[in-house]
Amino acid sequence: MDNKHIEFLKKIVGDENVYSDKAHLRAYSYDATKKRFKPELVVFPKNEEDVSKILKYCDKNRILITPRGAGSGFTGGSLPVNGGIILALEKHMNKIIEIDEANMVAVVQPGVINRDLQNAVEQKGLFYPPDPASMDYTTLGGNVSENAGGMRAAKYGITKDYVMAMRAVLPNGDIVRAGKKTIKDVAGYNLAGILIASEGTLAVITEITLKLIPKPRFKKSYIASFPNVENAMNAVFKSLANGANPVAMEFLDQLVIKALRQKLNADLPENAGAILIGDIDGNVQEDILFQEGILEKSFKENGCFDFKISTNEKESNEIWYARRNASPATTIYGSLKLNEDISVPRSKLPVALNEIYKIGEKYGFKIPCFGHAGDGNIHVNVMVKDKNNSEEVEKGHQAIKEIFQLVIDLGGTLSGEHGIGISKAEFMNIAFNEAELNLFKKIKQTFDPNGILNPGKMGI
Amino acid sequence: MDNKHIEFLKKIVGDENVYSDKAHLRAYSYDATKKRFKPELVVFPKNEEDVSKILKYCDKNRILITPRGAGSGFTGGSLPVNGGIILALEKHMNKIIEIDEANMVAVVQPGVINRDLQNAVEQKGLFYPPDPASMDYTTLGGNVSENAGGMRAAKYGITKDYVMAMRAVLPNGDIVRAGKKTIKDVAGYNLAGILIASEGTLAVITEITLKLIPKPRFKKSYIASFPNVENAMNAVFKSLANGANPVAMEFLDQLVIKALRQKLNADLPENAGAILIGDIDGNVQEDILFQEGILEKSFKENGCFDFKISTNEKESNEIWYARRNASPATTIYGSLKLNEDISVPRSKLPVALNEIYKIGEKYGFKIPCFGHAGDGNIHVNVMVKDKNNSEEVEKGHQAIKEIFQLVIDLGGTLSGEHGIGISKAEFMNIAFNEAELNLFKKIKQTFDPNGILNPGKMGI
Repeated sequence: MDNKHIEFLKKIVGDENVYSDKAHLRAYSYDATKKRFKPELVVFPKNEEDVSKILKYCDKNRILITPRGAGSGFTGGSLPVNGGIILALEKHMNKIIEIDEANMVAVVQPGVINRDLQNAVEQKGLFYPPDPASMDYTTLGGNVSENAGGMRAAKYGITKDYVMAMRAVLPNGDIVRAGKKTIKDVAGYNLAGILIASEGTLAVITEITLKLIPKPRFKKSYIASFPNVENAMNAVFKSLANGANPVAMEFLDQLVIKALRQKLNADLPENAGAILIGDIDGNVQEDILFQEGILEKSFKENGCFDFKISTNEKESNEIWYARRNASPATTIYGSLKLNEDISVPRSKLPVALNEIYKIGEKYGFKIPCFGHAGDGNIHVNVMVKDKNNSEEVEKGHQAIKEIFQLVIDLGGTLSGEHGIGISKAEFMNIAFNEAELNLFKKIKQTFDPNGILNPGKMGI
Repeated sequence: MDNKHIEFLKKIVGDENVYSDKAHLRAYSYDATKKRFKPELVVFPKNEEDVSKILKYCDKNRILITPRGAGSGFTGGSLPVNGGIILALEKHMNKIIEIDEANMVAVVQPGVINRDLQNAVEQKGLFYPPDPASMDYTTLGGNVSENAGGMRAAKYGITKDYVMAMRAVLPNGDIVRAGKKTIKDVAGYNLAGILIASEGTLAVITEITLKLIPKPRFKKSYIASFPNVENAMNAVFKSLANGANPVAMEFLDQLVIKALRQKLNADLPENAGAILIGDIDGNVQEDILFQEGILEKSFKENGCFDFKISTNEKESNEIWYARRNASPATTIYGSLKLNEDISVPRSKLPVALNEIYKIGEKYGFKIPCFGHAGDGNIHVNVMVKDKNNSEEVEKGHQAIKEIFQLVIDLGGTLSGEHGIGISKAEFMNIAFNEAELNLFKKIKQTFDPNGILNPGKMGI
């Protein structure tokens, strides 16, 4: 990075907010993919005005710049793959600006951690449902950029369902507002709609207005064992069709159950081929009982042989122990986990899982799966036994590619939660036709004609 | 229209689907704005392939083309303001393709009437919540293009909250798919997000996949009278904050109440300064009772002097009679109604109404208001006494302009439900800054570089 650029940036944000030392460049070089790409400079903007000035300067001087929240993404969305500047938003732009109880909205800066918002609004009897597994450290700016999901999506939807408005800076420095603090707004193009899930490639989000809902008064957790995945999935559809509306319907497959028993001594039935875990909530106890009744009946009619409902928080935590430890437990199957999140229409889950296991057999991998049965989003883990065996690793990637093709053939998507980033970029042409990819490229050029903002992502 | 164009289009869709006779040109020249713009040709595509061929041809030959559903819009979105072709989708492309119960989605063509979908899914115990007032004749393609709202938005959201996927044809004839039949999908830019509410200016929607939910088992209606608007609005916030989640919270102001009593002999309290009307629903009777209790308590603590709950469908219909007839009743105040839908953050409703009445006094107009208190969306009716008095009509438009400025100053939007079209195009520069308008123009150019698709709309 040319010294004159560094000096100019220091004038905008102050000396104390521009770093090119080894420690900073290293600290801002990775995310949850564990891939590393060193930036040339790390800059901490203090506010939206800084972001505007920085982008305008970068655009004029063709300096690449990559916005970053917590760097907890699973697909490399915040990695500076071609160098340039990391624009780190978590240090200064991390304030909850307002919790507006009358309108039930929160206004936040992009660097606010998801859990911090949840805690703050719950103290006021309100509720922000999107709960990505990383919510203890992930930022809301990152959540919006990747359109993060979570376990509560089956009932409450995902991040996009809660974004009412945002402010953002275009690569040329222009500040735009998208949406309003109103439930209805149909004036102008839906800019918020296109910025959500755009992975930081179109604009830098500087403020987000999020919809809140009243916090449900009661909650119970359930766990149910089934002989196999097909039975469990039929139980899911049947209970939803019968009018239950569970907050979460998470599933564990046989390999995950085995791993939890073996590695963590989890108290799960040995003969379970699939387990469903989740919560039901409501504002009156009778609603909980109503849903509990539907679940128990629908589950038992579909082979469930062990159905438990929590009666207090301790029991709820015990039930969730298995789901929370599903990911770490799977390491008994190999030293390298190729972890992909895919999503298919709910009804296609049984056939998807069946075919995924067949792909595992063909390549000689265990593929433990768990995830969100209620919304069709599965975490597929191709377990490579020896991470140093490059031939086996390559075979793992081949298996992943077959899985993606399968998912697309079933009407599903490359990613339900994690985004495309760099990890799934090579598969974009499986999922999209030429016209669609061409349109994506044109949209990118419209917002970022000089290609300075988060380049090299999403396969465009 | 050149004869060679007409012949080519006939080859695509058949002679029986291309019309240039006086009756057709007249029938397809207007919408609910009552403005008239004659097209040069009316074409009825049979399917997506036809749409693609027609657009490709129009793009190549720079022929203007305007897609149209039922023509029931309130802002001229489907009017061929610069002539050209009307692409009428309601005749052939009006099939419900699939109601997929396992995944709780419906796949429809754009010409399906909202009510027809509602009826079809309710027969299967499912529910499609968006309910614009025009739902008996409005098409789902139009609903998506305008991002239609409705009374149930307070609890269930608006059209965009139910669009999971769509197929659309770009002006160059390219067919693109946006979204999937999955609850989670974060691969690629959110094309569905930008097509929703784009008023047919970016692409022609050829198929829509809509989310359905289980139909709530119980419903009751309520009506409550208050001394004034401020009390009624405080009652709204308070009941929501206390955990009620009514399907609808509609309000009538004093002028509307007076008109209903005078013109329709409606059984409403003479001393009511504001009335709230709505529904509560749930899957267990106790949930209804819980919400009913909150409403009654919150309302009475805020001056409510008359609170009724329906005990059967007949009583429910009686309660809704007043709300359903609010619009026709207001004609006692004038022969021309300048009807605008605006939306402010819920908490700003009392001040917004107060200021709107002041603008009415200043210009000498009665401005009866009614609408959706639960979501901040008001239908404002500037009543011009004599529609043939051009000076008075001009003053009416001045009043509307002041109202728009007020709404924007309060953090609201030009349109909560109706869109911009031609009616509100002149006010776009009140609501958006230069950078935003510039971005809208660039987005339009990206999708439609030759400007053939629904030109002259949205002020871009």
